[in-house]
Amino acid sequence: MDELKNIIRDVPDFPKKGIIFKDITTLLSDAKSYQRMIDSIANRYVGQRIDKVVGVEARGFIIGAALAYKLNAGIVLVRKPGKLPAETFKKTYDLEYGTDTLEMHTDAIKKGERILIADDLLATGGTMGAVVDMVNSMGGEIVECCFMAELEFLDGRKKLPAGKVFSLLIF
Amino acid sequence: MDELKNIIRDVPDFPKKGIIFKDITTLLSDAKSYQRMIDSIANRYVGQRIDKVVGVEARGFIIGAALAYKLNAGIVLVRKPGKLPAETFKKTYDLEYGTDTLEMHTDAIKKGERILIADDLLATGGTMGAVVDMVNSMGGEIVECCFMAELEFLDGRKKLPAGKVFSLLIF
Repeated sequence: MDELKNIIRDVPDFPKKGIIFKDITTLLSDAKSYQRMIDSIANRYVGQRIDKVVGVEARGFIIGAALAYKLNAGIVLVRKPGKLPAETFKKTYDLEYGTDTLEMHTDAIKKGERILIADDLLATGGTMGAVVDMVNSMGGEIVECCFMAELEFLDGRKKLPAGKVFSLLIF
Repeated sequence: MDELKNIIRDVPDFPKKGIIFKDITTLLSDAKSYQRMIDSIANRYVGQRIDKVVGVEARGFIIGAALAYKLNAGIVLVRKPGKLPAETFKKTYDLEYGTDTLEMHTDAIKKGERILIADDLLATGGTMGAVVDMVNSMGGEIVECCFMAELEFLDGRKKLPAGKVFSLLIF
């Protein structure tokens, strides 16, 4: 996986001074790397029943949509407030400074459906923790939370269900 | 394609009173419909060389990512301002009231690459017209602009390159 890690670009001082941003667009736009990344995650779940993949706005849509296609599943959207038109669940969670809110349609997941949750990056785990809570409250059975990459030093895994986290690339 | 059209849900008065919103999440979350939708668009391009699919934030990421995976291409992101970390092209375009701006990384497309642009919905064509301008200015060769659905009465096609527009579902 070192080739995939190496094609991710470090951008210094984004979104603010002192932060080194992991820019995954260089991996996504390279056809071979993109195919390999999706296949490497999807292969964990081939042969299991996955009813729906939940993708987290916005980069999680990319990982989630390709995984859902490959795994013959539907794709469910977790969006920022005000974007989903029908009735939604809302979940507010803590950030380093302040809070954020996510929404899912209340009819997006049926009780007992087997759910894979996908996002690009596991950092502090706050966002994914909120998504896990929403999927659980809808009665979905979480197969795993999967990520293209994980910033291990931020300990985000601790906020997620034990044994149900997979990251393809560890930084 | 009538089954696919029928699974798209009309939500009245969203985002504002008097507008009937075409909610595609009901199609995306249905595994069979989602697979069929992606396959039906992708089959137009199988056997052609597609180097990169350009997906437009945020629902266009879903269509674009699955098409890119299926067509063995990379996926390039068109994002709202301030989201892309490296050097970008910016394009401002007119809306019904006011303007909007989109960005792409300046190194996202190389001269001569064959580009498929993907979005969920063709309405007035303003957004896609801006994306076409950006791809052209980077030297990309546009194979086609493809959409899951088109609101034909809004005449959005007129803003796009003649003969290079495909919509799977026409409303």
